[in-house]
Amino acid sequence: MASMLFKQMTIIGVGFIGGSLALAAKRAGVVKTVVGYGKKRGDLHKAASMGAVDRYFLTLPKAVEGADLVVLATPVAAFEQIISAMAPYLKIGAVVTDVGSVKGELVYKMESLLSGRAFFVGGHPMAGSEKSGIQSAFPTLFGKALFILTPTSKTDKKAIEKVAALCKGIGAEVVKIDPIKHDQIMAVVSHLPHLVAYSLMELFFHPRLIKSDMLSFAAGGLRDFTRIAESAPNVWHDIFLLNKTAVVEAIDLYQETLEKMKKAILAAEKGDEDALFKILNNAKSVREKIRP
Amino acid sequence: MASMLFKQMTIIGVGFIGGSLALAAKRAGVVKTVVGYGKKRGDLHKAASMGAVDRYFLTLPKAVEGADLVVLATPVAAFEQIISAMAPYLKIGAVVTDVGSVKGELVYKMESLLSGRAFFVGGHPMAGSEKSGIQSAFPTLFGKALFILTPTSKTDKKAIEKVAALCKGIGAEVVKIDPIKHDQIMAVVSHLPHLVAYSLMELFFHPRLIKSDMLSFAAGGLRDFTRIAESAPNVWHDIFLLNKTAVVEAIDLYQETLEKMKKAILAAEKGDEDALFKILNNAKSVREKIRP
Repeated sequence: MASMLFKQMTIIGVGFIGGSLALAAKRAGVVKTVVGYGKKRGDLHKAASMGAVDRYFLTLPKAVEGADLVVLATPVAAFEQIISAMAPYLKIGAVVTDVGSVKGELVYKMESLLSGRAFFVGGHPMAGSEKSGIQSAFPTLFGKALFILTPTSKTDKKAIEKVAALCKGIGAEVVKIDPIKHDQIMAVVSHLPHLVAYSLMELFFHPRLIKSDMLSFAAGGLRDFTRIAESAPNVWHDIFLLNKTAVVEAIDLYQETLEKMKKAILAAEKGDEDALFKILNNAKSVREKIRP
Repeated sequence: MASMLFKQMTIIGVGFIGGSLALAAKRAGVVKTVVGYGKKRGDLHKAASMGAVDRYFLTLPKAVEGADLVVLATPVAAFEQIISAMAPYLKIGAVVTDVGSVKGELVYKMESLLSGRAFFVGGHPMAGSEKSGIQSAFPTLFGKALFILTPTSKTDKKAIEKVAALCKGIGAEVVKIDPIKHDQIMAVVSHLPHLVAYSLMELFFHPRLIKSDMLSFAAGGLRDFTRIAESAPNVWHDIFLLNKTAVVEAIDLYQETLEKMKKAILAAEKGDEDALFKILNNAKSVREKIRP
């Protein structure tokens, strides 16, 4: 069992990720007490009955009182308001982290809102985005997952090392990366794939699509795209908006790639089959570099 | 056990689909003898040792001799040449079917090449496109899968009913659909999703992508796309080319949908969030209509 890192961890938003993190941290013995904060008493009660939280509050000041670690696990769009509301009640020197999928400018904003009171460490566990709700939480969610931390030049060294130790304690692999670069990378490896999957579903509403009971034939390739199209719309709405610059740039590059693919098909028809074969074979080489 | 439908079924191309079909048909008792044809003796020997074929030949005339059912299970691009080469050796009144992913004009061509000698029935089992090779074949592949048959006005009624009975015998659900419409539907529900997945991999070769070890972060959404990017490049090369009209049309509609998504993100930024929410919620409604 890992050593105790925090006496009191307060989870703001005890849903799937927040709840899983609480269960994992308790099981690993890296936190002593977990306090939950949320808007729905029923969810908090469920979290308590699952052993994810030791006690819970529906008011922010009480929830963060005495915490040496506060984890933001609500939708990202709510972070700024929550930080502003809770800052005056934080213990001096507390560590605040988050589990949001977007970092970038938000990290600098959080850092400045907490400046002089608490230490902010941006975090992003890459795990299970399509699930939601405390009822789906489980303690092994982070096992072997990447847990990205996004230090800036102002990040407190001790704070980030304690958060990193917690991440490792729950079985995750920690990677540190600049917050802006994080968003550029995520736009390509995560946000674009989600957008692509959503768009494949939206295609079925295209007015020029031939009228047919297409979806009853959708057993093939399409089904693989549906897991991520199950992800909560409000979560992805926020992600696409908060990372819009990098996401729109990724869409543009992807459109160019689709155009290249289309040209390769038309070129192959005229006898030049190299371009199409090259693209299809490239796919294999990329796949082999992706973590299993 | 279903009743015997064919005395001798010859499989042309004993790979993953052909081998699985042979194993399934024998197990269901709907064929008495299975004969294999292929180019590699090792693969045919493996098929025999697995019990998929009772005997095999490396020459087409011998393989089809006496068969009352011949199944084309090679890559689609080879069909025309194979049909032409084997036609003179077919038993009069034999049934010829195939398991190719593209139908359309090809069905009319096969039909005319066999006219007066044998009956052609176009077939397309929707199962397991990413696997390949006889070593991966298994008899339950078609259980609950859709098996599409593509009759034309010239299709022999008795022939198609016997093929349909075989499909049902191996556990598949039979759907009959016009060959041209089949290709239009497949372009959207299967070929486009494969192309989209291949393109997401190809994106990593885009020269304007930021330089970074992106793929080590690809645990998220991207991984769901990799199963179909594992599909054999030569198979999909043929499919994209043979169905190029419908595939290129599907790419065009998809690009319009991505553009709509991009506009929705930019509109949401300016305060109009309805369009983006609508797309994300639509995705859910589509997913629910897709066969599990």
